[in-house]
Amino acid sequence: MCSRNVVKFPDFDLAAIYVSDAQYNRNIYFDTSPQAVSLYLLYNHWLPRVLVYFFILVDMSLAVFEEPAVLPLPTWATMLVELLCLLVFTVRLVHYAKVIPRDKFWKDPKNICIICIVVLTLIDMIIYGALTATNCYALRWSRVLRPLLLVNVTEGRQLRRAFRSIRNALPEIFYVFLLFMFSVLIFSLMALKLLGKRGLKTMDGSPYFTNYLEIVFDLYVLVTTANSPDVMMPAYNASFIFTLFFILYIFINTYIFMSAFLAVVFNNYKKYLKEEVRQLVRAKRHKMVRAFAVLQERREEGGELVVTQANWNQLVRLVQPDISNAHRELLWSVCDDKNQGFIGKLAFVQLADLLNIEVITLKSRPHPLQSICPTLYLSAPSRLLCRLVQHRGFTIMYDVIILANAVFIGLDEENPMISNSEWVFLFLYLLEILLKLYVFEPRSFFSKHSFWNWFDTIIVVSALIATIINSALKSVGGYTSRQILDIVFILRVLRLIRVVDSIGRFRTIINTLIRIGPAILTFGQLILVVYYIFAMVGMELFKEKVKFYDEDSNDPAKAYCGNPLLKGTTFAQLNYCKNNFNNVMSSFILLVELTVVNQCNGFATVTHVSARIFFVLFHILHVVMVIFVSFVLEAFYVEYSVDKGDLQTSLERKIEELELAVAQEKLQDNLVNTMETIDNDLGAGQSPTANRPTLMFKIASKRYRTVDAFLQRMFEADLDPEDLAENDDAEAQTNFANPSFSSV
Amino acid sequence: MCSRNVVKFPDFDLAAIYVSDAQYNRNIYFDTSPQAVSLYLLYNHWLPRVLVYFFILVDMSLAVFEEPAVLPLPTWATMLVELLCLLVFTVRLVHYAKVIPRDKFWKDPKNICIICIVVLTLIDMIIYGALTATNCYALRWSRVLRPLLLVNVTEGRQLRRAFRSIRNALPEIFYVFLLFMFSVLIFSLMALKLLGKRGLKTMDGSPYFTNYLEIVFDLYVLVTTANSPDVMMPAYNASFIFTLFFILYIFINTYIFMSAFLAVVFNNYKKYLKEEVRQLVRAKRHKMVRAFAVLQERREEGGELVVTQANWNQLVRLVQPDISNAHRELLWSVCDDKNQGFIGKLAFVQLADLLNIEVITLKSRPHPLQSICPTLYLSAPSRLLCRLVQHRGFTIMYDVIILANAVFIGLDEENPMISNSEWVFLFLYLLEILLKLYVFEPRSFFSKHSFWNWFDTIIVVSALIATIINSALKSVGGYTSRQILDIVFILRVLRLIRVVDSIGRFRTIINTLIRIGPAILTFGQLILVVYYIFAMVGMELFKEKVKFYDEDSNDPAKAYCGNPLLKGTTFAQLNYCKNNFNNVMSSFILLVELTVVNQCNGFATVTHVSARIFFVLFHILHVVMVIFVSFVLEAFYVEYSVDKGDLQTSLERKIEELELAVAQEKLQDNLVNTMETIDNDLGAGQSPTANRPTLMFKIASKRYRTVDAFLQRMFEADLDPEDLAENDDAEAQTNFANPSFSSV
Repeated sequence: MCSRNVVKFPDFDLAAIYVSDAQYNRNIYFDTSPQAVSLYLLYNHWLPRVLVYFFILVDMSLAVFEEPAVLPLPTWATMLVELLCLLVFTVRLVHYAKVIPRDKFWKDPKNICIICIVVLTLIDMIIYGALTATNCYALRWSRVLRPLLLVNVTEGRQLRRAFRSIRNALPEIFYVFLLFMFSVLIFSLMALKLLGKRGLKTMDGSPYFTNYLEIVFDLYVLVTTANSPDVMMPAYNASFIFTLFFILYIFINTYIFMSAFLAVVFNNYKKYLKEEVRQLVRAKRHKMVRAFAVLQERREEGGELVVTQANWNQLVRLVQPDISNAHRELLWSVCDDKNQGFIGKLAFVQLADLLNIEVITLKSRPHPLQSICPTLYLSAPSRLLCRLVQHRGFTIMYDVIILANAVFIGLDEENPMISNSEWVFLFLYLLEILLKLYVFEPRSFFSKHSFWNWFDTIIVVSALIATIINSALKSVGGYTSRQILDIVFILRVLRLIRVVDSIGRFRTIINTLIRIGPAILTFGQLILVVYYIFAMVGMELFKEKVKFYDEDSNDPAKAYCGNPLLKGTTFAQLNYCKNNFNNVMSSFILLVELTVVNQCNGFATVTHVSARIFFVLFHILHVVMVIFVSFVLEAFYVEYSVDKGDLQTSLERKIEELELAVAQEKLQDNLVNTMETIDNDLGAGQSPTANRPTLMFKIASKRYRTVDAFLQRMFEADLDPEDLAENDDAEAQTNFANPSFSSV
Repeated sequence: MCSRNVVKFPDFDLAAIYVSDAQYNRNIYFDTSPQAVSLYLLYNHWLPRVLVYFFILVDMSLAVFEEPAVLPLPTWATMLVELLCLLVFTVRLVHYAKVIPRDKFWKDPKNICIICIVVLTLIDMIIYGALTATNCYALRWSRVLRPLLLVNVTEGRQLRRAFRSIRNALPEIFYVFLLFMFSVLIFSLMALKLLGKRGLKTMDGSPYFTNYLEIVFDLYVLVTTANSPDVMMPAYNASFIFTLFFILYIFINTYIFMSAFLAVVFNNYKKYLKEEVRQLVRAKRHKMVRAFAVLQERREEGGELVVTQANWNQLVRLVQPDISNAHRELLWSVCDDKNQGFIGKLAFVQLADLLNIEVITLKSRPHPLQSICPTLYLSAPSRLLCRLVQHRGFTIMYDVIILANAVFIGLDEENPMISNSEWVFLFLYLLEILLKLYVFEPRSFFSKHSFWNWFDTIIVVSALIATIINSALKSVGGYTSRQILDIVFILRVLRLIRVVDSIGRFRTIINTLIRIGPAILTFGQLILVVYYIFAMVGMELFKEKVKFYDEDSNDPAKAYCGNPLLKGTTFAQLNYCKNNFNNVMSSFILLVELTVVNQCNGFATVTHVSARIFFVLFHILHVVMVIFVSFVLEAFYVEYSVDKGDLQTSLERKIEELELAVAQEKLQDNLVNTMETIDNDLGAGQSPTANRPTLMFKIASKRYRTVDAFLQRMFEADLDPEDLAENDDAEAQTNFANPSFSSV
């Protein structure tokens, strides 16, 4: 590594790769030969990454077309598509194998997993093809493996981390669960002894609480509250003393154990996540140290190793080509505190974090109309209009209009007056947007962070188009398309959401929820993996056991969902026939229903009592996950409302020093709001902007480019900066690759 | 205050009161005249405090005997009892008024509240008496005020703090709730527009989603998951596209908003609790400073003010008469680090916290049998027996016996072999206890903290007595009392719980749960207050609307719970007739059921649609509370598993220095376990104890005398010790009384 010191022209590409890896927390150990580096660059290009996810999606959605299918396709067609997918995954894996050293490749479990998945799928396809060709019963068992691809691709870091956190917390959770099951078993034994001999009957006349296993199951379901008063009614009708038993049971098993579960999950999650983030940060600094080693030079003999501003500039331009010159200079001035023209290792290492802070560069431009026709735009009536639109009353007026619109939507739209009023409202909304465009500079109005402006415009314009199409169709054929009408209705109602933006507190909550979006997406994938596996297994176990008949079907089997075993059961009585596993769509919907309330008696009736195991397993798994996910979201939510990190503060200080900051009182509000008010200010009368610099910076303070960056910030207080910064390079060499990230 | 410096004999009583107030965090500003002090001592005596709680309990349980009554009593009888209760409360309040200065008394809202409650109850009783005497319809509306007494008595500090925390968190929660309601309203509007015009029918043939208010209510109930698949089935049967709407709805309103609620509650609860604890600690130190001022003397001219060991000893003896000399000396050696014979203010202030740390004094005594008959007890067979009982195998053997017993309990007990086996098991359990008593010193075996030994003995002995009574009854008259048999069964099953103690991880969890018991009790009171109020209101609104008929009644009204409006409803079909508000017992059971699953359609049918308001209100209130309570419990649970506070560590260090500590490896396990193993050690062969001191200390490390002490520990890291220690006495004077604790 030290040999680089004497090289005249440092390898900027290599350094840029290190910085970019540090910025996005990629932990891939690649060869540094020029060929391997260019392969690595290709590997990290957005196109192959998107393609891999696209083909995983295609692979998973094949379930829609395979037997039992929503839209049946011939077997050879789905097989061909699946082969194509497998080919893509193999190519991607081979590419990865070329990038990293061979021994690292075979040590990494995620590569082994992908190879296994591909091979097993191929075997399954051959067996399935052979069996269907000979008309035997065949099973596509390899379909449960598909979602595992999501976990094992290189880009699934977040998902792997989530799985690791759950796996690490599992032993502790397991002990609480065992104790919970022990409590259920003891309570069941007591119920058997107390209630079994009293000759009580349940609602449908069967003996009450006489079979131990049935009692265990009933009491387990009681914890999920699905059979809440029913299971207790026979005992309650006999004597109110027995309710004490049930109340005690619910208190202990639903409330106390749930609290214990939450606490255990919370403790363990925090513990392991902190350790992971610590390693993440350490790996990041190692990579920055490597980049530094590439660019370093010695200013004077025996002096410190430094990086010059010129080299630094070229590096930043390579890492982030779209960065503005002003922004880059700002970053340099933060790094080079003393204006020396070069920076040491410690200042250089900050770069990855600095690049992850979103700094919004605001340019105050005059309104285009002002340039085209200045006399008119700056005339007295025009300026009055500008002032009117910017007045608080304008916002309040439109809030009132939205409320009035809500009332009109609620009324019967077949009344011609009501349906015509829609045109009035559409006109008013369009007018609002046009007025705002007249007053504010269009490019800042439609800037990247002006969420509500985009939302408004898209909703209003689509509503306009849909309404016009709808009335055109109506006037031509007197025919109203139900689909278009549905879209019109949805758009109309969505418009009402805008009112949330006018109330400060609501805006804060909504913005926080929007910001934790990426975290929700990660855990959404986690849930998708589990649901997909259960849907595949459930389809094989329960397909065609329960059939759905159309509303107008006259088949007598309709009353019992096409399965005589269901005759007279609550399942058929409540008309749950469509809750079945007959295709992947129904399976997913049913699993969501089970997530909300776990009821499985219907399926236990049509197959066997042991089918309950499937549902209990799903319930346990999903409770663990939901607790986990809700805790994670909540932790994120809490963390979002705390103060900013050190680095951001130093950046902000610099911005303020340079007198480039947006007025302080604006900064205190949240981002989306601030952006709008800034837009207002900059677009305003144009006179006050004259005595301000034409370029302004604003830190998107609580928005992070990556989830990793956010996690790092979350545990900043607990991480020891010195421990991380002063690592030996030697040590960095040894555990650089995947420091404990190698396992799933 | 400085005048005390010259007093020869310090007022130990006054100082002891200050210390005791600090120890139990009492915030009562009392006069320091000797008469007021003795009145104050009487006020804090345990007897009047217990009496007040007893009479509050009597007052609240009057609901059982008043119309609509479980056990009817004549009106004059309940009225007389209530008058007695009111008299007791008034006497207690007058006593309080005598203790504290008049102006403080009238400024304290809790006194005003009690006066209002007493006066209003008197007025209500007079009106009720007059109306019933003239046979008019009368309402005991003042009954909803009764639980408020629990909140407003001087001892209800914990409860008042809980209410304050909820009240402080309420505004933030309210905004999230408003946003949640906005989301429900928007979704309902969308449902009306999308589904209302399609002519869908619900299961019972009524039109589906056509009335806006009905939709809002249905979707609100969907959030509670009570009507989960049913409300969605008609739309799902029409097209699976609509399920997207419901899934989105559940995702946003059940999961996302619940996370937001949790996060907001968490944030606010922590914030306010920390502030409260800060004030609590400040008030405590002020009181200790006052106690110091009473006892202080100047050793040398111009020197520091100090308290001598003699004075300190007398004070501690007054504050805690049951403290052992050894324990007191230990505490002194912790305070007086340098062995000077006197301590300064800072060391003195610690005393209240030191007294709150439970230190267990272990005396290693020889077994009484050893003293009575040493040759026999120390003979070879006896020692072998001792070793056998202490062997791990003994515990494992009994675990196996317990499991075998569980199987036998599960089998049919009418089989004579099975029922006789019970005697064998009883004998085995008795034998175990006797053997242990033979081996271990009885006083350590039944020491205060040996929870499982007490549990075992009580359960086994009661089971023996109950079984003997049962067989005596059987053999005398061939008659088996159902009640006694029930007790026998319950005791038998409870015995099985013992097995939990043998598994280390389970023991840890159970012990943690037992330790958060006091916290659960506080919040149990909170829930009792809310339930009581809703039960009283519910009884007035819904009594006798739904009637329950006995199993063998032939009344045709039985099929519809005695109310023709319920004919054919699900409520009557599912035989929920006993879920009614006809007496206070049923009301409480029903409220618990509503807590689990909120279903109210039956009651809306028998009265009016607006009755739903009662149920929705109950649901909202109880969700807020349950979230709150679960969060508190969980926070407690998490906090219990962290390290010990500073003071405890210094105490432990001292114990170790003096070589009085129990072997370190024992300390690492949790308390109950440690206690048992210590007992074992001390009772063991008696030879190893010879070379150990005969007196040993053990800190009950995670057990706190009071909830307040626990709270203080919880926030120790965040509280600034210097800020608290260096308060001016002047400032202490001004806000000494109830620093912000004055309001409910």
